[in-house]
Amino acid sequence: MAGRFISLEGGEGTGKSTQAKALAKAIESKGITVHLTREPGGTPGAEIIRNLLLTGQEDKWNMRTEALLFAAARAEHCQSLIEPALEKDEWIISDRFIDSSRAYQSVSGQLNDEDIMALHRVGSCGLMPHRTFILDLPEEVAARRADARDRGDSDRIGGRDSDYHHSVMSKFREYAKDEPGRIKLIDAAESQEDITANLLHDLSDLLD
Amino acid sequence: MAGRFISLEGGEGTGKSTQAKALAKAIESKGITVHLTREPGGTPGAEIIRNLLLTGQEDKWNMRTEALLFAAARAEHCQSLIEPALEKDEWIISDRFIDSSRAYQSVSGQLNDEDIMALHRVGSCGLMPHRTFILDLPEEVAARRADARDRGDSDRIGGRDSDYHHSVMSKFREYAKDEPGRIKLIDAAESQEDITANLLHDLSDLLD
Repeated sequence: MAGRFISLEGGEGTGKSTQAKALAKAIESKGITVHLTREPGGTPGAEIIRNLLLTGQEDKWNMRTEALLFAAARAEHCQSLIEPALEKDEWIISDRFIDSSRAYQSVSGQLNDEDIMALHRVGSCGLMPHRTFILDLPEEVAARRADARDRGDSDRIGGRDSDYHHSVMSKFREYAKDEPGRIKLIDAAESQEDITANLLHDLSDLLD
Repeated sequence: MAGRFISLEGGEGTGKSTQAKALAKAIESKGITVHLTREPGGTPGAEIIRNLLLTGQEDKWNMRTEALLFAAARAEHCQSLIEPALEKDEWIISDRFIDSSRAYQSVSGQLNDEDIMALHRVGSCGLMPHRTFILDLPEEVAARRADARDRGDSDRIGGRDSDYHHSVMSKFREYAKDEPGRIKLIDAAESQEDITANLLHDLSDLLD
């Protein structure tokens, strides 16, 4: 079976990491080698860049520098982990990928979708996931979950205000409409088990 | 008088830093505010990225990640220092800028000039210097000077082999041919004082 690349997207507190783990476990149980990874980060070099991005003051980087640092971390992630795994017919499940950059970085209005995709083409040859799940949760529920988890330790980006996160989620929904073949909007208010079952059901064409 | 942006380019050991300092001093003596800066780096944030780029093993970053990190440092440099200074009609003299990225990063063959310029457009709105001086020195002289200075402490990029540095210098000469209005090839084998005088003579149109 060919290697496949699955990304999970959505705001903070929507359950992406939990579902990424559950999905990896379920697919591994079919005898497939699965790499569970995340962005920004996923390789030692990319995690160094992650640390630059997520720690420090909100105004530490301007939006253009931030977009380039995300793209740099992704280039490292793609070349050191994702592409070699796919070439070996292994699977990648990534907690966030390019659609997070598109949503979070275009919201500022300083960069548009073409800019983000231009960086992705130069950095990572425009590599796209085979399937992307956007975990969609009413915003007040997601905010409560994120607050409960963070206990005041939000990172540079998670700590931005609710209007920002509302705009990010609108962007994600827009992408799902634009690319219904690749991107699936998933109701993240269901039980964890039901959500995992929905994801696996959706992946049945790739798992056959 | 309008703000002006001058960059100095060339290989290691060609005297860029020395000339940048001498030029800044000469222009300041005319009552102009001059910012003497360098790339990668030039602002606290960009210097953090410089440190990622220039320390560590030769294979620490792949060429695409490296190009994005240089562009990230430049975006920070442009937005935090260069653009605000030019808006105040001040001068910038930078030891290296975009032409170094074009020369050093395209030599690998993994990225072309369009790729580098695409990153520059997204990161720094494609900001170009008003004048660029390429200090040209016979390669064996430059290598001897660089060796004498480094005492074995070459950074990640300066430490690459002589074929690499030869190809970089050929690129620089090509750019000077392509853009004779902006880019001037300067004979760096003359005395320091003569070179500075040549640079100032060339800048007379911008200083009037």
